Order: sequence, then C-alpha cells, then structure tokens
Amino acid sequence: MQTYDLIQKTRRLEPLTTDEIQYLVQGFTNGEIPDYMMSAWMMAVCCQGLSIEETTALTIAMRDSGDHFDLSGIHARTIDKHSTGGIGDKTSLLVAPIVAACGGFVPKMSGRGLGYTGGTIDKLESIAGFRTNLSEAEFLENTRRVGCCIIAQTGELTPADKKMYALRNLTATVESIPLICASIMSKKLALGADCILLDVKYGSGAFMKTPEDAEILATLMVEVGKQAGKQCRAVITDMNAPLGTAVGNALEVKEVLHMLRGEMRNSLTDLATAMAAQMLVIAGKGDIIFCRKMAERALESGEALEKFRAMVTAQGGDARVCDDLSLLPEAKCSRVVKAPRRGFVTAIQSEEVGLACLGLGAGRTPDSQEIDPGAGVVFSRCVGDFVGQGDALCTVYGKSDALCEVAAARLSAAIEIKDAPAVQRPMIHKIID
Amino acid sequence: MQTYDLIQKTRRLEPLTTDEIQYLVQGFTNGEIPDYMMSAWMMAVCCQGLSIEETTALTIAMRDSGDHFDLSGIHARTIDKHSTGGIGDKTSLLVAPIVAACGGFVPKMSGRGLGYTGGTIDKLESIAGFRTNLSEAEFLENTRRVGCCIIAQTGELTPADKKMYALRNLTATVESIPLICASIMSKKLALGADCILLDVKYGSGAFMKTPEDAEILATLMVEVGKQAGKQCRAVITDMNAPLGTAVGNALEVKEVLHMLRGEMRNSLTDLATAMAAQMLVIAGKGDIIFCRKMAERALESGEALEKFRAMVTAQGGDARVCDDLSLLPEAKCSRVVKAPRRGFVTAIQSEEVGLACLGLGAGRTPDSQEIDPGAGVVFSRCVGDFVGQGDALCTVYGKSDALCEVAAARLSAAIEIKDAPAVQRPMIHKIID
Repeated sequence: MQTYDLIQKTRRLEPLTTDEIQYLVQGFTNGEIPDYMMSAWMMAVCCQGLSIEETTALTIAMRDSGDHFDLSGIHARTIDKHSTGGIGDKTSLLVAPIVAACGGFVPKMSGRGLGYTGGTIDKLESIAGFRTNLSEAEFLENTRRVGCCIIAQTGELTPADKKMYALRNLTATVESIPLICASIMSKKLALGADCILLDVKYGSGAFMKTPEDAEILATLMVEVGKQAGKQCRAVITDMNAPLGTAVGNALEVKEVLHMLRGEMRNSLTDLATAMAAQMLVIAGKGDIIFCRKMAERALESGEALEKFRAMVTAQGGDARVCDDLSLLPEAKCSRVVKAPRRGFVTAIQSEEVGLACLGLGAGRTPDSQEIDPGAGVVFSRCVGDFVGQGDALCTVYGKSDALCEVAAARLSAAIEIKDAPAVQRPMIHKIID
Repeated sequence: MQTYDLIQKTRRLEPLTTDEIQYLVQGFTNGEIPDYMMSAWMMAVCCQGLSIEETTALTIAMRDSGDHFDLSGIHARTIDKHSTGGIGDKTSLLVAPIVAACGGFVPKMSGRGLGYTGGTIDKLESIAGFRTNLSEAEFLENTRRVGCCIIAQTGELTPADKKMYALRNLTATVESIPLICASIMSKKLALGADCILLDVKYGSGAFMKTPEDAEILATLMVEVGKQAGKQCRAVITDMNAPLGTAVGNALEVKEVLHMLRGEMRNSLTDLATAMAAQMLVIAGKGDIIFCRKMAERALESGEALEKFRAMVTAQGGDARVCDDLSLLPEAKCSRVVKAPRRGFVTAIQSEEVGLACLGLGAGRTPDSQEIDPGAGVVFSRCVGDFVGQGDALCTVYGKSDALCEVAAARLSAAIEIKDAPAVQRPMIHKIID
C-alpha cells in the first residue's frame, strides 16, 4: 500500500477502504508516515470530505491506536457525555452527580481547556486537593462506588488523535467535520462507556457556527457511535450566549454549587436536567418524562449535591467547599460593568466573553499555559432580562485592576441592550438519534 | 504574517495577497516554513484552486526565489519554447535549429526525463561529447553566435520550484493546474526570454487528459506570461499517439536528423514547422503564412541541418553524427512486432508506448536513474496507415532479447487495427493567445 495513492484517492473523491485508513492511522502513529504526507491527506479530507463508512473506519483506527479502558468491572451500564465545548459550559459538573443520584454510572474523561476558558478538568482543579490523574483501577472503583468520576485524559488512550490533532492545529485542518467526529468519537470509544450523549453546540462561542453544521456533525457522530455498537444520541444546543451566569474556573464551580444547593436556577439548570434525563433515557432508565422528573428530583432533594460531595471526597478534594464557597480561590480585583442605557439584554456575544476571560487569565494562551482559577466574569443580567441605566450588568474578576479594566470594556461592548426583548430561543434546538 | 492563516485562507477560498504568497514561497525555500505546512497549503491549492492573480504572484515569487539569467547580451529578441511533454516529443530538437535558420534566437533550458522516456537533455546527450552544462556566459555566447543553444536546468534557478516539486511528488499534489502553471512559468521567466511559445499536450500520453484541461492550463500560462511582461502564446496539441515514428533517446535524434536531411517527413515535421512558425510570429518576424513558409524553406534548404550541426559543434558534440547516423549509440537486440491482422492502424496508445520504453530502459524509474540511450521503439506504421497481416508494425530496441520480448508484447497490445481508418484529428487543436 502506498501512502501517495491513498492521498490521491481522497483528493479525487475516491473512497478509501477500512484497511487503507487503518494503514494511514497506524503508519502515522508509529512514525512511518511523515507529517507532510499526513497533513496533505488531512487537508484533502478537509476540502473533499469523507463518507460515513470512511469516518467510522477512521474513528475505529484511531480508537485502536492505543489502550482501551475496560469498564466491565463497574458491573452496570455506563453513560458518557461529551460537549463540543462552549463559554461557561459547566454542564458536566451538574449532570454527572444528577445522573449518579438517579442510579446511573458516569465514568467521564475530560480535557483541559485549549483556548477561551478552562476545561472541566481545570474547573475541578480549583477545588483544593482534587485529583484528576487517577489510575484506571481507581477510576473504575470510584465510578462503581460513587456513581460518577471525572478524570483527565491520559496519553495512553488514542495516541493517533493526539498526534493528528497537534498537526491539524498547525496546518489549518481543524475545521473538518469528519476529522472532528473521529477525534471526539475515538476517545469516547476507547473509554468504552455503553451509552454516549453528545452535546453539539452552535453559535458565536461554539466551534460550529450554525445549527445546520452542528446537526451534520451530530448526525455523523451518532451514526459512527452506533456503527461501533454504542447507544448514542445527540442534542443540538444554542451557544450564542454564555451558559449560566459565570465564566471562569472557580466562578463556575461556585455557580454549580449554588445550583446543587438549590440557591440558584437559570437556563443552565434546565439544560443540565434535560441532558441528565437524556442520559438516563439512553441508559434504559425510563421514558423522557419519567427521567426528567427523576433528574429534577435529584437536584431539588439535595441528592445530587451529596453525589458531588462524594465525588470530591473520593478524588481527594476538600469537600468542605460544598458548604463553604469561600474556600474556592478568589481573585484579588474586581470591577462592575454598568448598563449604559435602560432596556432589555438582547444578546451577549459569547465568543467575545470567552476572549475577555482569556485576557483575564481564565484560559490558556500560546504565551501562558498557566490559569488563574479565580479570574472570570459573573453576569447579573442574562439575555431577556430588563436593566435600568447604571444597573450592574456583570462583574469582572482578575488579578489586577488593569486586567479587569480591559476585560470590562470588552464585555460592555459584548452585551447588547435594546428597547424590546429579543425572541428567546430554546436551549435544546434538536435531538438526533 | 502567520502561515496557519494563509493555509486557512486558501482552504476557505479567500484570496491571498501578493505579499502573502511571497511570504509562503520565501519561507518554504529558506526552510522557515516546514514541509508539513507547505504540503497542506499545496493540497488546499489542489482542491480549492487559485485565482489568476494568485497564480501570477506565485509564479513571480518562485521566479524570484533564485538567480535570473540576463539574456540582454544576446542583443536580439529571444524566443523560448516549452512543451508539457509527451511520448516521442523531439520537437525542440527540430524547432530550435529551424527558428535559428530563420534568424531567430532560441536560448533553451530543458529537463531530463522524469518518467516514460528521457527528456530533451537525455536525447542530446546520446550524441558523443555533447555538453549540456554550459556556463551562463557560454550559453549566451552560443545563442548569440549560432542562434540556438540547449542546456540542462541548473539548481540556481527557481530553487523554490525544485523544493515544491519534490514535495508535490510525495503528497499527490502534482495534478493542480495553478501549481503546474507556476512551476513551468517560473522557470521560463527566470530564464528570461522575451517570447515564449507553450506547447500544451493532451491525450493518453500527456499530463492533461482532455483538450479542455489543456486549454485551461494553456490560458492560465499565457495570462501569467503576459502579466509578467512577455510575448506569450500557446498551442494545444494532440498526444493521443506518439509524436513521429521513434521513441527513445538516440532513436529520436536519428529521426530528427533524417528530417533535417530531408529524408523523412511525417506529422511531426508538420508540427515542428507549425511551432517554429508560431515562435517566429510572436518574435515579430512576420505573419503566420510568411513565417510558415520561412520555416519550411529552412528545413528543405538544409539550413536548419546546418544550424543543428553548428549547435552540436558549439556544445562540444561530435557533429559528424549529422552525416553518419551510425555514430549514435545502438541497442544490441531488436525485435519486430508484426500485425496480427490486416486493416488500418486506428490508434497507438501513447501512454502504453511510454511504459514499454520505460521497461526497455529508455527512461528513469525509481529503481534505476540510468538510461540506455539506444533503447526504444521505431514505428513502421502510424495512425491512419494500412497494414497487411504479418507486416511490421514497429521494431523494438533494447539491451536483451528478454527486455525486447516484454516490450514487444506490450506494444502489440497498444496498437489498434480496424477495418476502416479512424477520423484523423489535426495535430494542433487550438491556438491560445
């Protein structure tokens, strides 16, 4: 088999066989196929696309490039959840304990943040002592015992994805639906949960800019998941405004705890219970109405909070944070952004919010890999709310007044206020299964 | 400027500026832009295309990546000619002395063969002593004095093209019209002749398979040539059957000498005089009817033979070859291919002929860079000729009976004989200017 011919086939829109795709992935992973050939192939994929069969073969080949987890020791149906990422997306921190409180088992592997704000792992690590680098045995044991466990990605799973992603990131081949699908699904399949719920976001703060693109990606991922023998479903959700009220690592944990304690409820609460319900449905716990009620009850009764507390304890974290939010890292400086006029908040540009938080130190940049856990923003008003002139729109947190001032200006420009409220879109745009 | 952004722009069909293209070419040539980024960009070009403006900028940037020749010392309008290459294409060996005999000046730089059969340089080197590695001063002096000079490509001209071509050849990005155009035209512009005639071939033995593709490439090259301030014209020619009767290095020189000596005339003679006439037209020597007559007269009068002789002498070759063809290298073995039936030769698959000659040692393969100058095939019948059963179709030459036998079988299958003659297509399909 010649790599040249395979690149040529994809460029000429001729399908590759499963063996040919496996040859490419294996050869690239073990260094036999050089970067310049793989980048040419991935660019051909980016421009010409891949069929569902090819995408499935690519996903399986990437899954098999490294270790697989064996979740059979949990002795129950396991449910994974993946989000394509968004500004202020702390859904995993809510759904994992909610589903666990309803008798589900959620073994979850999450990433660190790549841009904008931190990832789920960065958020959890703002809790003192919280360990995300558990061994496979600890991971299984915690999931089995608590019902949920969230760990960081390890290098032994899907090394092909790691190497391909690094090359895509240098060669402008990130935005390819088949490559995104294979990257996400290979990791999900290597982890090995029986059921997978995919949250594919669209909008200004998301990777997919339109609901149509999000739907194409979601449909492809669900199909690939099914081909690989998994229970798989996707929800298409709106990421045009940040999720919830907080953006920033410790600030988001604080928001999650407020919700789990029943002190706060917003559109994020609705999304989290809806997602938890979908996870319970695909795990066979009942129909959507029943599962939705279970999820709501788990949240309201405080059982989800107890699961969160148990998870933090099991992973070495200081669980007193559940009762005392002041134990979370706090920024030295803050600044309130005030409404320049009266009216209704009609839009909050989430991409701009993400960039403002990045500037505050809440995410990683090429120049700095370090994250300031206390940095970020908390909104006092959400899309749809009325605001009077001079009322607080949000509060910015950072380690210096200068940083806060820059972010405040950016945020002020990102919040749109008009005379009449905008039409509210539902959080869940569509369900794909 | 970030290479990533430039790759992304091309992938997204957003045009690059002249500065951006120059940055890519310079950066790649001096090693600052790694292979894996350039191969991704070239694949994006392959799939998404480039505009005429971008192709011109790419050509100019590649032209300027190394030395330029200064042909002003010739003190006359200079005329270059380029062929995209075909089986048995020895046109340059005819047109250079014909144009020189008509008072034109042809400073020509040619390539060695890459596949199939040898290039113009390989053909000339089958003449004992013929030097193709002249210095720039010798090249100018010979052109000025004789009227024509043919030398091999030097590494100092267009190093960007050399590096890009090597990478394209490994990453299946050879078949891109803008990249082919920039590769050819950058070399023509660095050589610096005032007028350029392009011979773009189509058909089974050519790089462009259809006249439509050939026309797209020709139109682009003529436009880029004009943008760069050159007199430029292209002819689209048929390469569905081999050119003339001989394929193979010394065998082709022999055919050229037969023609220059007035002992042979076939469709190649017509093509060569037509091309020479076009070169004289764009150099301002007269209209096409006048120039065609000049070219015919130069051939018939023996003046073109004298120019060939002078060129061979000036480049250190044994010019006695012009009078004694037996001084050319000859193959040890030969084998006649006979007609399996009576009828008309309706097609000779030139790609198959090229591959048969490659097998005989007439061209370079990845395994062997050495060429057998005596190897090849001479056709006794051309497309359109009548043949009786058992008549000779062609004679195969090689260094062993075994090699000849394999090639003979391949050639026998490549020659189509039918009851009725096929419709003859004109050699020149179209003229683009």
